[in-house]
Amino acid sequence: MAQAKTDHVGAAIVIGVGPETGLGAALARRFAREGLRVTIAGRTPERLERVAAEIRAAGGSVSVKAADATSAEDVAALFDEAERDRALELVAYNVGANVPAPALETTPELFERLWRQNAFGGFIVGVEAVRRLAARGGGTLVFTGATASLRARPPFLAFAAAKAALRATAQGLAREFGPKGVHVAHVVVDGVIAGEYAATNFAEYARSKGADGVLAVDDVAEVYWALHRQKRSAWTHEIDLRPFKEPF
Amino acid sequence: MAQAKTDHVGAAIVIGVGPETGLGAALARRFAREGLRVTIAGRTPERLERVAAEIRAAGGSVSVKAADATSAEDVAALFDEAERDRALELVAYNVGANVPAPALETTPELFERLWRQNAFGGFIVGVEAVRRLAARGGGTLVFTGATASLRARPPFLAFAAAKAALRATAQGLAREFGPKGVHVAHVVVDGVIAGEYAATNFAEYARSKGADGVLAVDDVAEVYWALHRQKRSAWTHEIDLRPFKEPF
Amino acid sequence: MAQAKTDHVGAAIVIGVGPETGLGAALARRFAREGLRVTIAGRTPERLERVAAEIRAAGGSVSVKAADATSAEDVAALFDEAERDRALELVAYNVGANVPAPALETTPELFERLWRQNAFGGFIVGVEAVRRLAARGGGTLVFTGATASLRARPPFLAFAAAKAALRATAQGLAREFGPKGVHVAHVVVDGVIAGEYAATNFAEYARSKGADGVLAVDDVAEVYWALHRQKRSAWTHEIDLRPFKEPF
Amino acid sequence: MAQAKTDHVGAAIVIGVGPETGLGAALARRFAREGLRVTIAGRTPERLERVAAEIRAAGGSVSVKAADATSAEDVAALFDEAERDRALELVAYNVGANVPAPALETTPELFERLWRQNAFGGFIVGVEAVRRLAARGGGTLVFTGATASLRARPPFLAFAAAKAALRATAQGLAREFGPKGVHVAHVVVDGVIAGEYAATNFAEYARSKGADGVLAVDDVAEVYWALHRQKRSAWTHEIDLRPFKEPF
Repeated sequence: MAQAKTDHVGAAIVIGVGPETGLGAALARRFAREGLRVTIAGRTPERLERVAAEIRAAGGSVSVKAADATSAEDVAALFDEAERDRALELVAYNVGANVPAPALETTPELFERLWRQNAFGGFIVGVEAVRRLAARGGGTLVFTGATASLRARPPFLAFAAAKAALRATAQGLAREFGPKGVHVAHVVVDGVIAGEYAATNFAEYARSKGADGVLAVDDVAEVYWALHRQKRSAWTHEIDLRPFKEPF
Repeated sequence: MAQAKTDHVGAAIVIGVGPETGLGAALARRFAREGLRVTIAGRTPERLERVAAEIRAAGGSVSVKAADATSAEDVAALFDEAERDRALELVAYNVGANVPAPALETTPELFERLWRQNAFGGFIVGVEAVRRLAARGGGTLVFTGATASLRARPPFLAFAAAKAALRATAQGLAREFGPKGVHVAHVVVDGVIAGEYAATNFAEYARSKGADGVLAVDDVAEVYWALHRQKRSAWTHEIDLRPFKEPF
Repeated sequence: MAQAKTDHVGAAIVIGVGPETGLGAALARRFAREGLRVTIAGRTPERLERVAAEIRAAGGSVSVKAADATSAEDVAALFDEAERDRALELVAYNVGANVPAPALETTPELFERLWRQNAFGGFIVGVEAVRRLAARGGGTLVFTGATASLRARPPFLAFAAAKAALRATAQGLAREFGPKGVHVAHVVVDGVIAGEYAATNFAEYARSKGADGVLAVDDVAEVYWALHRQKRSAWTHEIDLRPFKEPF
Repeated sequence: MAQAKTDHVGAAIVIGVGPETGLGAALARRFAREGLRVTIAGRTPERLERVAAEIRAAGGSVSVKAADATSAEDVAALFDEAERDRALELVAYNVGANVPAPALETTPELFERLWRQNAFGGFIVGVEAVRRLAARGGGTLVFTGATASLRARPPFLAFAAAKAALRATAQGLAREFGPKGVHVAHVVVDGVIAGEYAATNFAEYARSKGADGVLAVDDVAEVYWALHRQKRSAWTHEIDLRPFKEPF
């Protein structure tokens, strides 16, 4: 509901929070800065605590919840925690698992694992989010997508199949719940996101991109916030984001 | 390999063969008519036998294999059977499972089941197919897709997510194995396919479409055959098919 | 250039300004509110003056220029005027001409006219914009697009062909000038924009949409401004916008 | 009309016939081989005559018509000639003009010229074709498209804008006239077509592609014929074609 969006005394959930340099942490900081109480979920409690400490130090309100996004029970408990004493208005699904591999080296286990984390978790969180937000009269649900959701390129077969399924999930939920006041958006991240992951996994590549050649997490987080602020007369479902030099 | 395609003394596999009126059966008949020995796989042995009997009666060569497309072992055995004494040149993945449901009634189990049958099976069969066809120097792999792979509309959330993943799988395999001589194609079936399924599940709707208002399986099968016949100087990766009156 | 964007003591151009209730006027107001001097161009001098008067009354800086967007000379003069004493940083091409007609009633003249206003003007303005912005080290160019640019539906054949050409123009310019610091974006407006045009041409339809069922121009203008504010580490090329109840 | 398609004692038109090695000539040969009387149109009478002579020598029926596809009068006269004593059943619009240029070197004249030849001509021919074919109860209209219609990449700005407009035209006509029995298809040619044009303009590049690395015109023509043969229960609107090694 457009009105509910402008108060920002409500609650937000960010699922997929890892290192402090990551996008999940940046989303949590951004939402907390506006007054929302943010419940952050991820796989590594220590990381969650570090991100939470940083937010608290900046005066924000945050709670931490260990949760497996692919477990309906965990997800329900996570939402219960977030809705404990505030009205939920914003949910970000930021889980992204990627393992590049040529097709012949992509085992069924890997194919399934990437689907489970990227798409199945997104479905479970997404359904829980639209159910609760629609019951409250509205709110925003944003999925972190990738270019691979639009185009499958080697060696990202499993990742692309998973992200394509996530995109379809986002789109289906948007069509069904938009008219009920729930704003469902899909952010197509095209390029490398700065931070610990990039530094660890492809430092050389990231460096070769030069200044502003990778996506700064705070700039990306700004877009999620802008999506949440959109009035319901003009909602965006899909938006792409890439560094200015990124070929596309 | 373009040359291998014109002989048609080789072998074909059709996975996803159900009733005699279905597309899987039509594909098997069409391929057998050209001289290929067709190995057909599906979930119901009696149905497979009926389709096989019909093909044999028409002078075709066919073998039947019970196989679960989501089991790598079953799929390997299926391909072994098909390659027993002929050179494999054509594989069609025609499994399509659809259960319409609003998002809030789509259980995680249903979401997973549709993914497993439509996408996971397609991945396992697809990888096995490109591995074996590339080793032989070429061949064709065709996936039966759906409009839902391009656009997620309620009440087809789970189906769309699954078909989108299948489409990405097809596209990724095409990009990786096209240059190795394996022609991977994705047929976007847009509309209702005639046959027992339509007659059972939406007879009224199918009737309302009028003459040629649903997809005749033999006409669809013709397209799969035409894809297989394409020379490698001009390959199609994606093709849509719909009845002339179908809105799109 | 990201840095230049935050000063907002520069100049903006809005081409396609009509009635005060329209999107062009809303864009001009929005940009002027940030301190930019806005040069507005359109076909009807009286309308431009009314919009300018409103902006001046609100303390904004504005100049008016009669210009035919399809004339390279007019467009050059328009840019000269805008750059007279400020640094140009933002250009919006908001010309949109639409005349619905069945194909057999679409004359070559109509087909050409819609192309000329929607696409040819967009090309001339676009090239002039990227030339000047790139010379200054950066800036933003936003095109008002439409769903018809993605999908041609009767009775919008000519409009769709024109908007598809405009979209390609935007995309080509983005790919060529993004790496040079010029942010080119394409806004896919999906639905009816509120205002005089809607009130005159399909009042009944607009009313039937209910509250927030049509796009409020100020909400749309907000998105253009947010695009201009994006830092170059995370630029959007394409974004859709529709009322929450709009089917898509 | 599906039935009409199988007789092939009717007439076809191919617009955009150049050298004997080109796609236009191959289409004309292919259609003539089936018994259709083919009227070929192009800009260079000598070339048309050479193609016609070749077809006649092979026992085909052909007539030649100088026509400017962007002139409604010329196009009407061309259709009159084709319909003189046979029933028109197939029309191919194969005009393709491409001049690569960076955006800043793309003059308004060039942008307009490419639009005029690729898109405006396609519109005029397309409307004339659907009008006449619908009046006869059906038939096929095929447009030669390009990857640029889907994606605008430098230095093909003008070409992409023109081909995107052509694609929208094809799509709009398909949606409006499909239900009236006219099969409108758009072939996305992705890659270099073999022949005199390639040999003259990028011989080195074409050679570098190796065997079957460019599109053989006869293989492409086969696809147009297959489209015409499709029964109306299963029509294709869009199909891509690329050499097996072509990256996409």
